Amino acid sequence: MPLNLQGIQMNTFSVKELLSPDHLHQEVVVNGWVKTYRSNRFIALNDGSTINNIQCVVDFEEFDENLLKQINTGAALKISGTLVESQGKGQSVEIQVKEIMVHGGADPEAYPIQPKKHSLEFLREKAHLRVRTNTFAAIMRVRSALSFAVHQYFQKNGFFYVHTPIITGSDAEGAGEMFRVSTLDNKKPPLTEDGEIDYKEDFFGKETNLTVSGQLEAETYAMGLGKVYTFGPTFRAENSNTSRHLAEFWMIEPEVAFNDLDANMDLAEDFIKEVINYALENCMEDLQFLEQRLLDEEKSKPQAERSEMPLIEKLKFVSDNTFKRVTYTEAIDILRNSKPNKKKQFKYLIDEWGADLQSEHERFLVEKHFKCPVILFDYPAKIKAFYMRLNEDGKTVRAMDILFPGIGEIVGGSQREERLDILLEKIKALGIDEKELWWYLDLRKFGTAVHSGFGLGFERLVLFATGMGNIRDVIPFPRTPQNAEF
Amino acid sequence: MPLNLQGIQMNTFSVKELLSPDHLHQEVVVNGWVKTYRSNRFIALNDGSTINNIQCVVDFEEFDENLLKQINTGAALKISGTLVESQGKGQSVEIQVKEIMVHGGADPEAYPIQPKKHSLEFLREKAHLRVRTNTFAAIMRVRSALSFAVHQYFQKNGFFYVHTPIITGSDAEGAGEMFRVSTLDNKKPPLTEDGEIDYKEDFFGKETNLTVSGQLEAETYAMGLGKVYTFGPTFRAENSNTSRHLAEFWMIEPEVAFNDLDANMDLAEDFIKEVINYALENCMEDLQFLEQRLLDEEKSKPQAERSEMPLIEKLKFVSDNTFKRVTYTEAIDILRNSKPNKKKQFKYLIDEWGADLQSEHERFLVEKHFKCPVILFDYPAKIKAFYMRLNEDGKTVRAMDILFPGIGEIVGGSQREERLDILLEKIKALGIDEKELWWYLDLRKFGTAVHSGFGLGFERLVLFATGMGNIRDVIPFPRTPQNAEF
Repeated sequence: MPLNLQGIQMNTFSVKELLSPDHLHQEVVVNGWVKTYRSNRFIALNDGSTINNIQCVVDFEEFDENLLKQINTGAALKISGTLVESQGKGQSVEIQVKEIMVHGGADPEAYPIQPKKHSLEFLREKAHLRVRTNTFAAIMRVRSALSFAVHQYFQKNGFFYVHTPIITGSDAEGAGEMFRVSTLDNKKPPLTEDGEIDYKEDFFGKETNLTVSGQLEAETYAMGLGKVYTFGPTFRAENSNTSRHLAEFWMIEPEVAFNDLDANMDLAEDFIKEVINYALENCMEDLQFLEQRLLDEEKSKPQAERSEMPLIEKLKFVSDNTFKRVTYTEAIDILRNSKPNKKKQFKYLIDEWGADLQSEHERFLVEKHFKCPVILFDYPAKIKAFYMRLNEDGKTVRAMDILFPGIGEIVGGSQREERLDILLEKIKALGIDEKELWWYLDLRKFGTAVHSGFGLGFERLVLFATGMGNIRDVIPFPRTPQNAEF
Repeated sequence: MPLNLQGIQMNTFSVKELLSPDHLHQEVVVNGWVKTYRSNRFIALNDGSTINNIQCVVDFEEFDENLLKQINTGAALKISGTLVESQGKGQSVEIQVKEIMVHGGADPEAYPIQPKKHSLEFLREKAHLRVRTNTFAAIMRVRSALSFAVHQYFQKNGFFYVHTPIITGSDAEGAGEMFRVSTLDNKKPPLTEDGEIDYKEDFFGKETNLTVSGQLEAETYAMGLGKVYTFGPTFRAENSNTSRHLAEFWMIEPEVAFNDLDANMDLAEDFIKEVINYALENCMEDLQFLEQRLLDEEKSKPQAERSEMPLIEKLKFVSDNTFKRVTYTEAIDILRNSKPNKKKQFKYLIDEWGADLQSEHERFLVEKHFKCPVILFDYPAKIKAFYMRLNEDGKTVRAMDILFPGIGEIVGGSQREERLDILLEKIKALGIDEKELWWYLDLRKFGTAVHSGFGLGFERLVLFATGMGNIRDVIPFPRTPQNAEF
């Protein structure tokens, strides 16, 4: 039985506990915030433990008028009473209220979260209060459940969680623009004799940045512990003001020794399905709420812009169906011969092998052609990162991307180049300083082996699972260009 | 049954799986790294899944000499053979080897991790390889298990995981020196008309830093979701070159609406005990190895400097015994009348009420006086943070610290000041700009309530659980002054 964490009163319960059948006819205490108060009689109280409220029935003649005046939306109350079967519609149980204590009121003239529809834009400005709405509470409970599902999946399958560094002195991966981390006086930084910034004087004695990926460090651990994963914040200093990009986001990066690309694809597919299943099994009420929210939102949209399936059906579809595996070369053929390419409807027309795929192409493959999640693999070497394993053909690498309907790329991964000579050639050709990567190259000198891994942007998974349209709405305090409030 | 994640060969197993009794007399395949190879016959192979190796028995006459020459410590092999009962001592099963494939060799002249004792200092320089030693593999497996125990504990008890921001525009907490995050040209930063750095031109349009704590943001979520926790990286730009400090470390911060300080202490104690129990239940072989390592290390030390209990006994002691709860005022009395104070053996003598406790005092209370974990609470307001709730006496606050033997402070927490007027006074008195905290103050304007939380430095918990002496040895890639390698 879970510990009672609500203080010394042993009959204090969460709203979720009260809505289970265990406490009927008991004297109970509950704390929460007023969602609505109607007819001077019915308080809908919520404490965040569930999307559902507990109805508290007040006989207003029994209470002081000044106390009842404080019962406004957003006020925090402690309520004592008897839990009984409800006579009304919409709830099975309710509390016959005996005592009310007001923790803190909420002036209806000043409190922004009133019981009416607020736009998501408005709520983004109130990121410190928006979790008090049903929508954001549901999103954040699903986010929490998905996080746990990630850990549970990997731990159950023999992976070890590795905390790779956030501040990094290595900038060799080149996955994106980086944020500089420094304690130097930025008005008068110390200079070397050549007039350059003297990073020897900085906190770490060198130039440091925020990590864009924990992959390279995770590889060092995979080559000792076998199966590892990271789950931590990563950063991109890119001026992308879109509904799909954040400057700070959480990434999951498993890395497995002795796994080839096929095993890597197996792992990614199995992982995503199990994590989504966890949400279906543990968050059904929140998902139902979010599904209805999306249906309501899309009512005003033309048919073509509406989701193809309701949210829960879409999640089940992904967890029940095999992802379609297609080589890049096959995908290029499909795209080249597709209607939108022939009718020049694509912004970027697919002309020849080697073209980088744009979001419009990925969406066509997933949403129009295959109508299911797609794993593209064996990409041209020249459009992929240096550490990906070269195929026998000498021109493709063992890379794979998983594409999801409505989301686009949700996973990017590869088998890593484990052969020292080929890796060195690649590094040289790209003009990367070998010395920067001495430790990464050591992995290929001592006990090197086939290994693979992938990265999954956690917020994209939450977007997909909640049916939300803007990535700023699935992380508590989004960081984007010109925005680091809170 | 866990997914087989080792490629297409379905009889491929981890070393841990092979050491369970399930696969006896089967034809099996295993991948791993050579720990030792002796008598041209016995390969001890390890893949990181467990502290134990699988013995692979080679009939050297059956194999090519050039292949056998590559079997050095650190080489990566794929071995096929029959799993049989072992005739030798030290293992119950072994593989009669039929095939060997060398993934990658390890030149004994060049590979630094040879089968001999390496100093921890030496291994810190090889942080990319040190997880290939028994000691670091054991530490990191325990670290991973403790991480999971943290999530499992909170999720089971109805808490929601919240990702509070890493880059923060708010610097009001003042828990320590911060790292600046910027994309401005640091040689020629844009200046305002007054000659100050023009942060409007920076990525976020304002000055930003790395977070020192997610507490204030976690409070906003507790006031909507009820029970929440964070588990993420935090940063201190302090020039502390000690065995107890890191510039980048992971912190766990639960925050609970409607919990007072007593409930907060209950939560912290129950949490620590359950997390340690999880390690005892799931990491016994690693803990036994680490216990022996510590015993060996301490053999050369004088009796007075050795641990009072072996590692596992110490962990059981903490999980089995009630933490002693003592007010700051009682602690001061004990310290004032203590032998080391009277004999002037303390560096900082305890003279009067209000003194800040130093590490020597905390250690005396825990290790000499109470001989068990201690929770000190109700500290003087003037030595604690602005957000802690003022007691009726007007001079103490509802703060608590948990002190552990050998570690010192492992938890710091408090009941938060939920009264707007008192919080505003505090902020004013400290000269903090109210506008900086507008969103934090909103929590006290709208539906404010009693709430509490604490912070636990995760690396200190790992130090305690593994018996290691230096915090740089319990995180994969430590960040300290002048050190951000890898």
